Amino acid sequence: MLEQYPSKLLERAVDEMAKLPGVGRKTALRLVLHLLKRDTPEVLALTQALATLRQEVRYCKCCHSISDTELCQICASPSRDRTLLCVVENLQGVMAIEATGQFHGLYHVLGGIISPMDGIGPGDIEVESLVERVAAGGIGEVIFALSPTMEGDTTNFYISRRLRPYEVKLTTLARGVSVGDDLEYTDEVTLGRSLLGRVPLA
Amino acid sequence: MLEQYPSKLLERAVDEMAKLPGVGRKTALRLVLHLLKRDTPEVLALTQALATLRQEVRYCKCCHSISDTELCQICASPSRDRTLLCVVENLQGVMAIEATGQFHGLYHVLGGIISPMDGIGPGDIEVESLVERVAAGGIGEVIFALSPTMEGDTTNFYISRRLRPYEVKLTTLARGVSVGDDLEYTDEVTLGRSLLGRVPLA
Repeated sequence: MLEQYPSKLLERAVDEMAKLPGVGRKTALRLVLHLLKRDTPEVLALTQALATLRQEVRYCKCCHSISDTELCQICASPSRDRTLLCVVENLQGVMAIEATGQFHGLYHVLGGIISPMDGIGPGDIEVESLVERVAAGGIGEVIFALSPTMEGDTTNFYISRRLRPYEVKLTTLARGVSVGDDLEYTDEVTLGRSLLGRVPLA
Repeated sequence: MLEQYPSKLLERAVDEMAKLPGVGRKTALRLVLHLLKRDTPEVLALTQALATLRQEVRYCKCCHSISDTELCQICASPSRDRTLLCVVENLQGVMAIEATGQFHGLYHVLGGIISPMDGIGPGDIEVESLVERVAAGGIGEVIFALSPTMEGDTTNFYISRRLRPYEVKLTTLARGVSVGDDLEYTDEVTLGRSLLGRVPLA
């Protein structure tokens, strides 16, 4: 049996590739061998895009989302409602909310979520800058749009306590049965919460 | 709705990442944002490992497997049986056969498989060098260990015709019911072939 890969260069590439989340050693080998079949300039386009992004990435000084400019296009837009602030965990959160077309306020990207199990505390995410934005005034409502998980709830709870001294409305995304879901397959926690949070028929 | 990613650097990285096989744009974004959370030296370790491999990769001059040396460790080993040659599609084939511990001969890595649908003909893979190795003499048996697919069968057929002029035994991996498989769930083609290829009870 081969005790290792037949090449140190290959082994190093597979080792590094396998550090990506959700990529095991078999997948890493498959991806690396795929790259070997592509032309060198194509592979360098990938590696340079990743290296350049990591080295030159900038974050919006206001909402902390990834941006090529000092202020991101959303924060800089004159047509957004500056009294509404939506708190999200990361860029995917911004993109998911933007895709609904239902929100026209500004964002605040925490860059993570409080998770004592992973050693991530309030100091590791953009909480202070959020408190400063709210303290500066002008914001009427802060909408929490974090994942409906234990960590999301912990983060909601911590931040809402920090924001309580300020005159600002705090809300969170409605939790309930998904549109189009079959009740039979809805988990009991979600169903129980939608029952408790029932709304009048429109 | 955001019409594009908030940063050109990010968009370029996601575009390049999404070219990897089995990686869609959502996965690409997740992987790229994961890399942004890692330290710059760690990301450069990945990109440099990939770039170095692509630029400096070498292939064994005998079996065409990936190797850091002119002759790979298997071809260079004095303990391997030089009369047995196993033909595989790629490095994964070598690793799979080596993992069985049942083969002690040499390999020939085709670097692909004949696939007219994908425009891959005999000239695109290492067929000529295989014919040369066999023509040089000393090889008693060539074992075809390609995938049991239409393309694998086509490749077996083409190469076996090219090798017919030489005095060499041509064999292929046995096809049949997998060890531990339930007959009820074995597909009918495999079951039909194992019936036709039935062997005397030992």
